[in-house]
Amino acid sequence: MKGLFITFEGPDGSGKTTQINLLNDYLTKCGYDVVLTREPGGTQISEKIRDVILNPENKGMSPVCEALLYAASRAQHVYEVILPSLKCGKIVICDRFVDSSVVYQGYARGLGEDLIENINNYATLGIEPDITFLLNLPAEIGIKRKKESKKLDRLEQESIIFHEKVSEGYNRMKDRHKRIFEIDAAMEVDVIHSVIIEKIKNIL
Amino acid sequence: MKGLFITFEGPDGSGKTTQINLLNDYLTKCGYDVVLTREPGGTQISEKIRDVILNPENKGMSPVCEALLYAASRAQHVYEVILPSLKCGKIVICDRFVDSSVVYQGYARGLGEDLIENINNYATLGIEPDITFLLNLPAEIGIKRKKESKKLDRLEQESIIFHEKVSEGYNRMKDRHKRIFEIDAAMEVDVIHSVIIEKIKNIL
Repeated sequence: MKGLFITFEGPDGSGKTTQINLLNDYLTKCGYDVVLTREPGGTQISEKIRDVILNPENKGMSPVCEALLYAASRAQHVYEVILPSLKCGKIVICDRFVDSSVVYQGYARGLGEDLIENINNYATLGIEPDITFLLNLPAEIGIKRKKESKKLDRLEQESIIFHEKVSEGYNRMKDRHKRIFEIDAAMEVDVIHSVIIEKIKNIL
Repeated sequence: MKGLFITFEGPDGSGKTTQINLLNDYLTKCGYDVVLTREPGGTQISEKIRDVILNPENKGMSPVCEALLYAASRAQHVYEVILPSLKCGKIVICDRFVDSSVVYQGYARGLGEDLIENINNYATLGIEPDITFLLNLPAEIGIKRKKESKKLDRLEQESIIFHEKVSEGYNRMKDRHKRIFEIDAAMEVDVIHSVIIEKIKNIL
């Protein structure tokens, strides 16, 4: 495996998309071959699964069903995009990966963090990120940011209590794996970007 | 748990639907409260997942993705239909259940029968059928029957070699669990129906 696998994690509204785009611009300018992708989604089949997960009509979805759908979407994504890209030496930047499932389904929905990691071991075909940037910030700030920016999907409509659990989950997550690098997402956009670039330079 | 959970298994074209309808008619006439359902599907959410699985556009689906989608669909089905129906004493007849995944994904696609049972242990919430009727017949007869009757979906379009593996898988399956009762599906419809009724009478 010659490529580099970078993931971004953090609650809704933590600024992942902004930072991913800035990192993409930077790496592309440096001449690297970058693949930008996201979960749930990232392939035609995964996007169809994403539609089922996020559709507000599907409010009655059981927690186990939701967790298995995320894993299914991920399985296709790894198989079709991430693994082939890494094999030919590309840098893959992925918006959310297994850690999101561990936090949202494992901790916040109470299915258990180990259970979610077990299910996802089948989905990832043994792939793990080289580095994970965890953009961390208090739940209420994240939700406030999101509400100001667009129409909320099913998961974003969840109560503030759920989002506080997500926040707790991310705080538990940060010590779970050595590859996770926590950043205070309340800092200015360009400061966060500089921190990320600094870290990436050390790896490349 | 006061209800009775009956599943039907067998390769495509083995006559499951016909036998399920006959059994449903019989039990309903006897005054039982019967719930007829099928996999993949059985709930609005499961049907949406079923559409993703069976859509011929999704030919590039990875075997692990397919297996996790079946498990997700099943998780919702158990949670929303099977478990509540059994809890209030109904007879649930289900067209395919975990055994199908074990045969199709575990054996025929080579993911491993144990792996599929492990994934599905999360999906079934501990529910197991009281009895499983395995309508068994050689692959080529099943395919021939199907082709004569309707347009083939993605799984049915698979080669005869795959369907022979399915047939082998069902032959391995029949000794895997005590609850599985094998019936020669090449017999006449009414003979098969009589065998099923005889068996059900002994259980009720």
